[in-house]
Amino acid sequence: MSKPSTDSDAVRSAKPLAHAKYVTFEEPLALEKGFSLPRVTVCYETYGTLNGARDNAILICHALSGDSHVASRDAADDPGWWDLMVGPGKPIDTELYFVICPNNLGGCRGTTGPADIDPTSGKPYGGDFPVITTGDIVNLQRRLLDHLNIQVLRAAIGGSMGGHQVLTWATAHPQRLRGAVALATSPRLTDQALAFDIVGRNAILRDPHFHAGQYYANGQGPNVGLAVARMLAHITYLSLEAMTEKFARDRLHPRALETEFETQFSVGSYLAYQGHRFVERFDANSYVALTRAMDLFDLGATPEKLKATMGQSTCRWLVISFSSDWLFPPFQSEQLAHALLASNRPVTYAQVESACGHDAFLLANDIGQYGEMTRAFLKNIEVVSELPAGSAARVSEKAALKDGGNQHSETSIFHGDRLDFQTMLELIPARSSVLDLGCGPGALLGMLKEQGFRRLMGVECDPDSVLSCTRRGLDVIRADLNLGLPGFADKQFDVVILSQTLQTVRDVEKMLLDMLRVGKRCIVSFPNFGYAPIVEEILRTGHTPVSSKLLPHQWYNSPNIRFFTIADFEGFCRDRNIAIHESIAINTECGIRVTEEPNRNADLAIFTISR
Amino acid sequence: MSKPSTDSDAVRSAKPLAHAKYVTFEEPLALEKGFSLPRVTVCYETYGTLNGARDNAILICHALSGDSHVASRDAADDPGWWDLMVGPGKPIDTELYFVICPNNLGGCRGTTGPADIDPTSGKPYGGDFPVITTGDIVNLQRRLLDHLNIQVLRAAIGGSMGGHQVLTWATAHPQRLRGAVALATSPRLTDQALAFDIVGRNAILRDPHFHAGQYYANGQGPNVGLAVARMLAHITYLSLEAMTEKFARDRLHPRALETEFETQFSVGSYLAYQGHRFVERFDANSYVALTRAMDLFDLGATPEKLKATMGQSTCRWLVISFSSDWLFPPFQSEQLAHALLASNRPVTYAQVESACGHDAFLLANDIGQYGEMTRAFLKNIEVVSELPAGSAARVSEKAALKDGGNQHSETSIFHGDRLDFQTMLELIPARSSVLDLGCGPGALLGMLKEQGFRRLMGVECDPDSVLSCTRRGLDVIRADLNLGLPGFADKQFDVVILSQTLQTVRDVEKMLLDMLRVGKRCIVSFPNFGYAPIVEEILRTGHTPVSSKLLPHQWYNSPNIRFFTIADFEGFCRDRNIAIHESIAINTECGIRVTEEPNRNADLAIFTISR
Repeated sequence: MSKPSTDSDAVRSAKPLAHAKYVTFEEPLALEKGFSLPRVTVCYETYGTLNGARDNAILICHALSGDSHVASRDAADDPGWWDLMVGPGKPIDTELYFVICPNNLGGCRGTTGPADIDPTSGKPYGGDFPVITTGDIVNLQRRLLDHLNIQVLRAAIGGSMGGHQVLTWATAHPQRLRGAVALATSPRLTDQALAFDIVGRNAILRDPHFHAGQYYANGQGPNVGLAVARMLAHITYLSLEAMTEKFARDRLHPRALETEFETQFSVGSYLAYQGHRFVERFDANSYVALTRAMDLFDLGATPEKLKATMGQSTCRWLVISFSSDWLFPPFQSEQLAHALLASNRPVTYAQVESACGHDAFLLANDIGQYGEMTRAFLKNIEVVSELPAGSAARVSEKAALKDGGNQHSETSIFHGDRLDFQTMLELIPARSSVLDLGCGPGALLGMLKEQGFRRLMGVECDPDSVLSCTRRGLDVIRADLNLGLPGFADKQFDVVILSQTLQTVRDVEKMLLDMLRVGKRCIVSFPNFGYAPIVEEILRTGHTPVSSKLLPHQWYNSPNIRFFTIADFEGFCRDRNIAIHESIAINTECGIRVTEEPNRNADLAIFTISR
Repeated sequence: MSKPSTDSDAVRSAKPLAHAKYVTFEEPLALEKGFSLPRVTVCYETYGTLNGARDNAILICHALSGDSHVASRDAADDPGWWDLMVGPGKPIDTELYFVICPNNLGGCRGTTGPADIDPTSGKPYGGDFPVITTGDIVNLQRRLLDHLNIQVLRAAIGGSMGGHQVLTWATAHPQRLRGAVALATSPRLTDQALAFDIVGRNAILRDPHFHAGQYYANGQGPNVGLAVARMLAHITYLSLEAMTEKFARDRLHPRALETEFETQFSVGSYLAYQGHRFVERFDANSYVALTRAMDLFDLGATPEKLKATMGQSTCRWLVISFSSDWLFPPFQSEQLAHALLASNRPVTYAQVESACGHDAFLLANDIGQYGEMTRAFLKNIEVVSELPAGSAARVSEKAALKDGGNQHSETSIFHGDRLDFQTMLELIPARSSVLDLGCGPGALLGMLKEQGFRRLMGVECDPDSVLSCTRRGLDVIRADLNLGLPGFADKQFDVVILSQTLQTVRDVEKMLLDMLRVGKRCIVSFPNFGYAPIVEEILRTGHTPVSSKLLPHQWYNSPNIRFFTIADFEGFCRDRNIAIHESIAINTECGIRVTEEPNRNADLAIFTISR
C-alpha cells in the first residue's frame, strides 16, 4: 500500500521513509474527546519475522517527535532513532522477535495527522484536526495489530510519551499483551512539565503565521514559534550535568550558524540549530496535537486512582527511570511501580543512575543498565515458568546459581555453606508468596523458584544485583531499605524475609515495623553481637574483632552499623507487642543449631515474627 | 530632584513610585563592554536614618524585575517587594540601619534604561541601548553612594541577580563594604539557566512587533514575546513541589481570564495571567538588557579563577542557598563559599531546606531561617570584637553560653562538666586558627572566642545550631561531614577539632584523612568502646549497654554507628603514618585522667594527630 498524497508535502520537507508500509482504514475512527476521523492511514515498519504461533511480536511506541523508523536495516539505510536497542543481537533482538513500530496518529511522518486531507472538506485538517488522546493513538495501533492478525503481543515497549502508550495498552487492553516495558515515563505529566508544554504551545499559537493552524497554503508556517517551542523542550530533555559538560567550558564560543536567533552564547547557537532542524522536519499542528495528547494523559492523580487503573493490567512489568531525568522524574515511575505493587501485579522497577537526563533512554551511556534489563525481562516474560524441569533454560538457571550466585552477601558474617538459607527455607510454608528484602543477586529467591514457589519478589539497592535478579526471571524493586517499604500493601506477602540486613539499616525501627505491616509472617536473620567469643575478644585484645572469616570488615568501613544481641532483639519485640513464633540460634563456626544460652553461644539468629 | 520625562510613558503604564528620589549625573558613565551613557539618572528610595558616623548604611540590590520600592512605609503605601525583610524590627531593621535601594541601570522603573531619551539623538534608546553588565549597574550604584556621601556600607544585600551585584561590590570594591549577604545566587549562571534566558529573549527578539527594539512609537511592543519569556522564566522561579502543591489537584480548572494564550489547564491560566501582568509593568528592551547582564556575569568558571576573584574581597560573608532552587542551585552557592574558604575569608554558608524554589528568598515560608540568619549576621558584622570586655554584648554572649549553649551534644556519652572541653582547650596553642567539625551550637568555639581566639570557624549540619553559631558571631558552614571537607584548603587551620563526632560518621577514613589535610594539627575525641565496664556489661546482661547517663541511646536509634577502641584508633593511625602527638584518656564517670590501661579504664579518648 502506498501513502496517499496530500497537500502538505511542502511542510513535510523531511526525507520519506524508504521502508515504511502503509495501511488505510476506511472505517471511521471514533475519538475519545468526541468527533471521529472518517479515514485513517497508518505508516509503520516491521523488523524480524513473526513466528508460527504469532506470539513473538513486540510493539515499539515512539515518543513525541519520533517515527516508524526505529532501526536501520543495513549500512545503506538511514539511522533509526533506537538503533542502540533494536536489531539482530540487540536488547530487542530482531532475530528473536517480530518488531512493529507505527508512526503515531496526529504526527507528520506518514500516519494521519493535521497536515493530511480531511476527506470531508478536501482540504488539510490544519487547526480543525480534532483533539486526540493517547487512547486514540493506541486504538489506531490496535487496528494495525488486527490488520497484521496479531492477537497478543509479547510486549509493548516505549519511553517518555511512548511509555504513556505502553501504560494505556496494558491498562485498557490487558488481554493484548504479556509484557510492558515503560521507560522514563509517568502516570501523568508533572505540573512543571505541563507548564513547559503550554509555554511552547503559546509560542506557536501566538505566532502571527499560525493562522489558527490553517497555514499550509501560505508558504510559511509558524516557524519561529515552533523553533522556540523546540528550543525550550530541548532544554528539558537534557540534564543540568549534561548541559554543563557540553557548554560550560566554552560558553562564549558559539558555532557558526545562519540564523536570526541569538547566537552570542555556545548553548544559544546549539539551541538555534536544534530549532531550525526541527522546523525542517516537523509540523507545528502535529506538535500542538501531540503535546496536548501528552498533557491530557492522566492515569490518576491520587495513589488510589492510580492503583485502580494499574490494577487493570495483567501483564508482567518492567519500569525504568533515570536519576537525572527532571522532565519525567524517577518519583513518577516509582508511583507506577507502587500502584502495581499495591495491586499485586508482577513488576520490576529500577532507577538507573544516569547523568543524561530524560534523553537517557535514547543514549548509549546507560544502555548496559536499561538495555540489559530490557533484554533480560523480555527473555523471561513467559519462558521459564512454562518450561518442563530439566529443560535448557532451567539448566542454565541452575548454572547461574552455582556460578557465584550463591555467594555470601557483603554483610555476611558467615562462612561455609549457607546454613541460614537452609533454615529459612524450612520456615517458609509451601506455596507462600515471599518478599526478600535486600535480596542481593537473588540467591535465596532463586532457590525458592527452583522449589516451585511462584509469587516471589525482591528488594535490592545494588544495580548489578537488580540486573542479576532480572536475568533469573525474578521480579525486583530497586530501593533503599532505609526509606521503608512505601509501595507495598498491608499484609501483601505471606512471608517477608530480611536476611542479614537489619544490622546495616540506619532506621531499624521503621524498617521492622514496615516489614511487619507488609508481611503476614516475617523472617529476620541477623548476626548476634552477644556471641561471647566476640565480646571476650574485645576484652582480651582491646580491639573490636576483625577476622577474615567471621567479621571481614574493619570498624571504619563495615556496612554493619547496628550492633545488638538476641536478647536486645527479643526486648525490642516485647516492647512493641511483636509476636515471636520461632527463634532459631545457629553457631555457624560449628555449623550447628544452638539451644543452650543462645545469646552467648550463637553467632546468628533467625526469628519468625508477626504483628 | 524630579525624574526627567521621557517618551516612553506609554510603555511604562505601571504606577509611579510615590517615595522615589531621583538624582541625575551629567558626567558620562563609561560602560564595561564599550560605549558610554552621556547622562544617567538613578531612581532610589531610602529607609531609616543615617547615623552620625555614616556607617550604618545597607545597600539592597534588587533582582531582575524588582525596583527601588523594597518596603512599604505605612498602611497607605504600596507593598514593597521585600516587606518581609525590611522595616522596623524586621531582619534588616530600619530602626538600626539606613537602607538604600536603587533601581537598576537598564531597568524601566526610574533609573536610566532603554526606554529613556538618548540625549544624543533626542529619541528613546530602544534597541540602541548599549550592552550593560553587572559591573556597570554597580558602578552607577557607587555614584549614588558618593552622592549620599557614604564611604563604607555596613553591608550589601541581594538575592538572585541582586546577589550578583553584591558579589561584584565585594570583589571589585572591597574597601566600600564590611559585610556581604548573597542569597540564592551564583558565580555565573548554569548553562541550563542561561539557556532558559536565551529562549525567552528569542521569543522577544523574533516577535514581529519588536522591530529591533524601536517599538516605542508604534503603540504596540513585543507583548507576546515578552509574555512568553516571562511565563517561561516564572516556571524556573518555582520548584516542582510548589507547582504540584499549587496546581496538581485541580489541573483542569483554569481561572477565568481574558487572554489569547492557552487556558485549558490551571497552570496555563496562571502563567497567562503572570505574562499579562508582566507586560503591563515591564519593558521588553529592559528585559533583554538585564537578562543579558545576568548571562554575562561570570566570576570564574573554574575553582581557581573563582578563588582568585573571591579572594579580592575583605568583608565578612553570609551566603545562603535554598534546597529546591534549581535555577540558582545550592551547589553554586557552595562554590562561592568554597572559594571564600580557600582564600581564608570569613564566611558563613547555609543551605536552607525549602520547598519554594528560587523565589524562596522572597517568601515567608523560610524566613525563620534566611531572615534570622541575616539579622544575626548584620548584628555581628563589627560589634563584638571591637567592644571592651564586660560590655553589654559580651555579657549577653556569656549568658547565652550558660543558657544551654554548653549542653552535651546528642552523641555525647558523658555527664557532669565538660572535662573533655577543658582538656581540648588546653591542647590548643594561643592565637591558633581553629576549625571545629560538628560544632553544634558553637559551645567550644564560643569558649575560644571568650579567650580571645580570632580566627574561628565551625562546620555543622543542624540548621538551628548553625543559626545559634551565627547569633554568637561565629562563622559556620552548614555541611554534612560524610561528604568530607571539599571547600577547605590544605593546612588552612592551625587546629581542626572533631569532638565526639567520629563515631557518627559513615566514612570514617575519608573524614579523618580530609581533616588531616586541612589542619596542621587535629584534635579528635571519641568514646572508647573498649571501656571494660561496657564490654563486661554485654557479657553479664546479654544486652548492649543502655543507661540514662552513660549511653542514652538504644541500639536501634543511636546516632553512633561506629564502635571502636583506643587501640583500634591507634592502629588506624599507625597503618597510615598518622603521627600521634598527644593521647589523653579520661574516665568521665570519675572525672579523672586515666594513665593505667586506658583502653580498659577510660570511656573517652582525646588524640592530637597530624600528617
